[in-house]
Order: sequence, then C-alpha cells, then structure tokens
Amino acid sequence: MSNFDLSVHFFMQMAAILAACRVVGLIARYLGQPQVVGEMIAGVVLGPSVLGAFWPDAMAWLFPRQLVVDGHVVMAGGKAVPHPLMTVIYCVAQVGLASYMFLVGVEFRADLIRKRVRSAVSVSMAGILVPFALGVLIAYFLQGNARIFKPDVKLWENMLFLGASMSITAFPMLARIIYERGLSGTSLGVLALGAGSTDDVAAWCVLAVVLASFKSDVEIAALAIGGGVVYAVLMLTLGRRLLAVALPRMEHTPLLKSFPVPVMLTLLMLASWFTDSIGIYAVFGAFILGAAVPRGEFAVQMQKKLEPAVVNLLLPLFFVYSGLNTKISLVNTPALWGIAALLFAAAVFGKGVACYAAARANGEPQREAVAIGALMNARGLMELIILNIGRDFGIITDELFSMMVIMAVVTTLMATPIFELVYGRERDAHLIASGRRLEA
Amino acid sequence: MSNFDLSVHFFMQMAAILAACRVVGLIARYLGQPQVVGEMIAGVVLGPSVLGAFWPDAMAWLFPRQLVVDGHVVMAGGKAVPHPLMTVIYCVAQVGLASYMFLVGVEFRADLIRKRVRSAVSVSMAGILVPFALGVLIAYFLQGNARIFKPDVKLWENMLFLGASMSITAFPMLARIIYERGLSGTSLGVLALGAGSTDDVAAWCVLAVVLASFKSDVEIAALAIGGGVVYAVLMLTLGRRLLAVALPRMEHTPLLKSFPVPVMLTLLMLASWFTDSIGIYAVFGAFILGAAVPRGEFAVQMQKKLEPAVVNLLLPLFFVYSGLNTKISLVNTPALWGIAALLFAAAVFGKGVACYAAARANGEPQREAVAIGALMNARGLMELIILNIGRDFGIITDELFSMMVIMAVVTTLMATPIFELVYGRERDAHLIASGRRLEA
Repeated sequence: MSNFDLSVHFFMQMAAILAACRVVGLIARYLGQPQVVGEMIAGVVLGPSVLGAFWPDAMAWLFPRQLVVDGHVVMAGGKAVPHPLMTVIYCVAQVGLASYMFLVGVEFRADLIRKRVRSAVSVSMAGILVPFALGVLIAYFLQGNARIFKPDVKLWENMLFLGASMSITAFPMLARIIYERGLSGTSLGVLALGAGSTDDVAAWCVLAVVLASFKSDVEIAALAIGGGVVYAVLMLTLGRRLLAVALPRMEHTPLLKSFPVPVMLTLLMLASWFTDSIGIYAVFGAFILGAAVPRGEFAVQMQKKLEPAVVNLLLPLFFVYSGLNTKISLVNTPALWGIAALLFAAAVFGKGVACYAAARANGEPQREAVAIGALMNARGLMELIILNIGRDFGIITDELFSMMVIMAVVTTLMATPIFELVYGRERDAHLIASGRRLEA
Repeated sequence: MSNFDLSVHFFMQMAAILAACRVVGLIARYLGQPQVVGEMIAGVVLGPSVLGAFWPDAMAWLFPRQLVVDGHVVMAGGKAVPHPLMTVIYCVAQVGLASYMFLVGVEFRADLIRKRVRSAVSVSMAGILVPFALGVLIAYFLQGNARIFKPDVKLWENMLFLGASMSITAFPMLARIIYERGLSGTSLGVLALGAGSTDDVAAWCVLAVVLASFKSDVEIAALAIGGGVVYAVLMLTLGRRLLAVALPRMEHTPLLKSFPVPVMLTLLMLASWFTDSIGIYAVFGAFILGAAVPRGEFAVQMQKKLEPAVVNLLLPLFFVYSGLNTKISLVNTPALWGIAALLFAAAVFGKGVACYAAARANGEPQREAVAIGALMNARGLMELIILNIGRDFGIITDELFSMMVIMAVVTTLMATPIFELVYGRERDAHLIASGRRLEA
C-alpha cells in the first residue's frame, strides 16, 4: 500500500464517516435531538458495536486496524504496527478536536458568570462536587475488578479519573440549545451559560490535575501542573492583551489583512503541541487559547470562518475514532450491566438532580431548575473526550469505556426531551432554523 | 510510538508548516508576490533543498521518513514502512487539495468564455498546443537519460506526461489577480479568465487521458477514460440539475437547513474516491463537482464557509509534502542544469510568449497581450499537483521533479512583476486589501 493507495481508501473512509453522521444526524434531528447526539451514535454505529457486530468483514475492510503486508501482520518491537490509516484518523480527529475546543473557547463569555454569580456558583459547585464524590466512591468499590480498571493503575488515580469523568458537562451543546432557543438574554440562559461554563472550566482543570498526577515522576507531574497553570495565566493575561493589540493591527495593515486566521491556526497548533507535550492534553491548551481571543467582531469572524470545516469535515473523525473503540458487547454479564446501571444512575443523580436541587435552593422557579438540571446533565462530546484520554493513557478498560459511552449518549439523549417538557417545542422553527438567532 | 505520541508530533509539524507558510508568505507579499508563491517556496524550504541541506538533523527529526522502532527500520514485504506521519501529511494534503480544487470549480464561470470566444479560444489553444508540443519534443530528446525518466516507462508515456505538465496554467492564481485588481469586468479580465479556465480544463483532460493511458491493461485504461467522461458528463448535466433543485430545497427545510455544506463535503469525498479509484485522480473529480454546484448565492456561501480552513489549514500540507520531495541538489551537473534551463525556456516560450502572440494576432493591444502572457505563464500550485501525480505514478525521477518545481516557482514569480510593469502597482491597496472587491 503506497501513500497514494492509502489516501484513496481514506477518501472512502471520510465519505462513509460523513454520510453516517448525516444520516444518523438527520434521524436524531427528526426526533428533536441535536446534531451532536446523531454524531455520537453514528460513531458507535460504524464501530464494533453495530457495524462490526452485524457485518464484521465490512468493518474490517473499511477500518483496518493493523498493517498487513503480503498476508502478514507487520510487527515492530514485539507489537503489531497499527494500520497507518488509524493513525491518520486519530491525528485528524485530534486537530479537529483542538480546533473545536478553540472555537468553544472563542464563544466562552466570562461576563455571563459575573451577572448571576450566586446561583451560577451554587449550581456549578453542585454539578462538580456531587458527581465527583460519587465517581470517587464508585471507583473505591470497583477497585480490583480487572474488567473495569487496569491492574497497574493505583486506587487514587482511578478515583480521580472516574470523579473527573463524572463531572463533565456538555457546555458547547448547552450553549447551542440556549442560543438556538433565543434564551441567552433570559434569566435561565444567563444562569445555564454561567454555571455550564464554570463547570466546564473546573472539570478541565480537574482533568489536567488528574492527568498530571498520573505521571509517575514528581518532576513530570510538577511540569504538567506548573506548566499548565503558567500557560493558562500567561495566556489569559499577557496573551490576551497581545492578541487584543496585534489582531486588530493586522486587520488594518494591507499586507497583513489576511493574517488573523492563519496566525491563530499556527498558535493553535503550537498551543496544542505544548499542552500535549507537558502532559495536560491539547484540548486544554486549545480552549484557553480560544478564551484569550478578543471578544466581539473578531471572535464572530473566527467562528464563521473556521466552524463549518471544523464541525463538518474534521470533528466527525473524532466521533468515529471514539466509536471504533466502543464495544458494547463487552458489557456481557449481569454484573457488568449492573455496574453500567449504577454508573448511569450516579451520573444522573450527581449531575442532573444535584444541579436542579442547587437551583431550587437558590430560589429559582421549578421550570428553570428542571431545565438547568436537564442541560447540565448532558455529557455530550466532552465526555467522549475525557474517556478517550483515559483510554489513551491506559487508565480504563474497554469495558468501562463502553459503559461510560452509553452513559454519555443516554444523558445527552435525555436533555432535549426534558428541556422541551418544561420549555415547550420550538415555537418559531423557521426563524430559528434560518440561523438568525445564532448570529444575534 | 502510540497514536497519541504521533499526534503530538503532528501538532508540531503543523505548527512548523503553518509558520513557515506565513513567514515566507509575508516576505513574498512584501515583495509584491501573491501568497501562493510564498507557500510554494515555504514547502521547498522545509524540505531537503534548504532545511535538509543546512540542518539535516532538524529535518530528519521534524519530518521522519521511515518507521523506526527500537533503533531498527521496520520492514514489510522487503520495503521500509513509511513513517505513519508521512501518510498523515499525504492524506490530509490530498483532502486539502481535493477541497481546494472543488472550490476552484465552484468559482469557475463558464459564461465568461462565451463572451469573448474567439480571442479566448486562440489564446488558450496556443497556451495548450505550443507548450505541449515542446514538452513532447524535449521528452523525445531526453529519452534514455536515466536521471530524467524512469527506465521502465515508455517513450510515448514520457512524451504525453511532459507535454501535459508543460501546458498547465495556474488558473486559481490568475483568477485571484484579476479579481483583486478589480479587472474581472474589463476586456482583459474576461479574456484572461476565459482563456485561463479553458486552458485549465483542457490540461486536466489531457492529464486524465495521460493517466488513463498509463494503465497497462486496455480494460483499465478504458475504465479510466470512459469512467472519467461518463462522470464529467453526468455530473455536469444530471448532477448539476439535481444539485440546483436539492440544495435550495434543503435550505428552505428547517430540518435540513444546515445540510448543504456537509452534504457537499460528503459528495466531495465520494467524488474524490471515485475518480482516484478509476484512475484519473481526485483533483479532477473534485473540480467537476465544484463546477456542478449552482452559481450565485449558494456558491458564494460555499466559498466563504470552506475556503478559510481549506486554504489556511489543509492546503499548506500539500506544499510541504511536495517540498519534501524536491531536492534541488540532485540537479548537480552542468548537463542537468542545461536541461533545467531548456525546460524553463521551453515553458516560458511555449506558454507566455505563445499566448502573447496569439492575443496580438487576435488584435489585442500590446499591454493586454503582455499581461495575458505573464498570467498564463505562471504554473503555480497546479504544476505542483501534476508533478506530484507523475512522481506518485513512478513516471518521473526526483531530478526531473526538482527541475520542474524550479520552473513552476520561477514562472510564478515572474507573473506579478511583468503584470505590474504593464498594469502598474495596485493603486487602491486599502480597498483591495479590505477584500471588498473579492465579494463584488
């Protein structure tokens, strides 16, 4: 297989991936679900859970896992060399993910938190602490179960990871629903965006600490934590100010007019490389870089110019890479299904119910509190990211990975119907669909 | 090296590639050259011709060529396994290239040819036939030179390939210069766009025939030529009509509102896979698909939504992949430099001078004729595409590849100064830089 032959097959894989995301996405949207639900499921459908279960030859042909030459699996250093196209899918998915998190950072509005500090802080604290505590507790009881955790990972590492992965919120989806319904200026909107974004930032910080703590070497852990803190602080102070001066100046210099987008993309690759290298993952660096972009017209332009290709061309590869590693048939004993149910219940109670209760305790009306609970409870893409990190780092087994993917998909599926139950179906479908609200 | 480790290095490669394109691009623009010149040169700079010549360790570290595990080169089927990241760069470059050619097709305006048929046809015929004849002639004389052509390729194949690769025109660059100068409605603009686009279509058809003819099997060649013709005809008749009905209908259905971009991307991947598979290369399929997109608001939107990421994120990888294969130091004897000079002279005479003469013969004023000659003479990115195809197919040696890259870069470098000599420097730099002209 020359690189040319591989690229031909890659076009085929891309076509299959994009088509699956569209078809399943269409069904999801028809059922009133957001596109992201469709793409999460499309990834699972193309993987061993569906395509591989019903038509294993097709999956093996479309997504070969190992490099085979003349009928022999190519070995190196005692291990099978992964098929180069799996590397291609992985690398493109990582670039897509980093670009997406960058755009999430660009959309992030710190000012919304300030507006309703008290409720937002309570809801987000509840949404972090309760699921984190439940995750820690469950990890403690599951420790020693070889089908859940890798035997060479320590108890406290498992506790931290499961805790962090329970407290994730699908902030981009929450924000999209709020914007699409034209609720961003309302009491509910401000509270949801404020709590959701605080929560997301906090969860990513926890994850960064968790990842750093996995480094066996104290120096490496210090580099990760210290480097991450220094990176975030520098980027959000000096970096933000530099960008606020440099970007408008570029726009007003004829020679540099077209520079903002490519310069930001270059910085994005550098930030991703840097945060990956020090051990706190590219998504973190990309998000912080996005948050440092000056708000206003510039952020809107960035979004408009990059989002279509990132969301429609690159990001689907992440869903599929994740789906290729999701094998629901691994959850094959009553005990494992019991654990899956326990994780799911803890996730819903810890996040959805806790956020609802916190909102009520702060005097929010019933309707708002239920809506907040439903939105905060959705794990979406963000959960897939942390799960894949856990899998990449060799922390969790494929069984736990698959259970948590089920939890992520179901909590995401629940969000819109519950939200609609209290807030009603989209009333002005045409206006919303025309996208004008998104730009408002 | 796990896929995670590889992705970290890939971020680093992307950062280096994007930064190099920006820095060299800035120098190029400062010298009055278009961005594409900078990116062509940036690719060569990161490759063995510059970085590899002065700092070979840095190049070997940044762009490893072979998979090495525990100090051993991994072998499979008697050959070294290429480094997975070279496959990643190649595959992403191909997707970028296909997307770019799709956008070139979207911008393609057949109506401009009709407006000034006679001059446009003469100029484009001259711009195809003369360089093609010269290419054929040179190939005939160079046949048997093992440093120019691969020994196992037949004479007529070499003649066809060199002929086709001489007659390429950098249509996207020509179009950009015309639009940027606000000349698209002028006599010169219509003529240049008409001749340039005819020329480009004709050259791609010649290339398709050449590639098809390389198939040793008659059935395979028939599949390539027949399949290519059927694809083009179906796409430009039935396909165009289907898209003209389906796309606006999607836009007016709330559920499908966001579908046009992802649906077109899916079709793009399918078209690329199909035309690659039948043997006429993805760029051809992508261009035709773009030409079938309904003109007007829809085409403008497509361009706006996809161009920033395609041009600034994906396409630079193609320049670098091409540059990594360009080794100017291979042109190391007076005889080889003589051949390089001959190729360059034939390229300029065959294309630039011939188009100038054809324009003059059709009664165009001196100024217009010189400008047309200079614009048609630039080979730009298009030449790199055909050269890489020739290299992928094992037709040309690395020596001839490098000579032709020099020819492509120099003819592209010549275009703007000559154009400015007759048309003057940009008078309204601010207006042009603001991009308003591009949208007009």
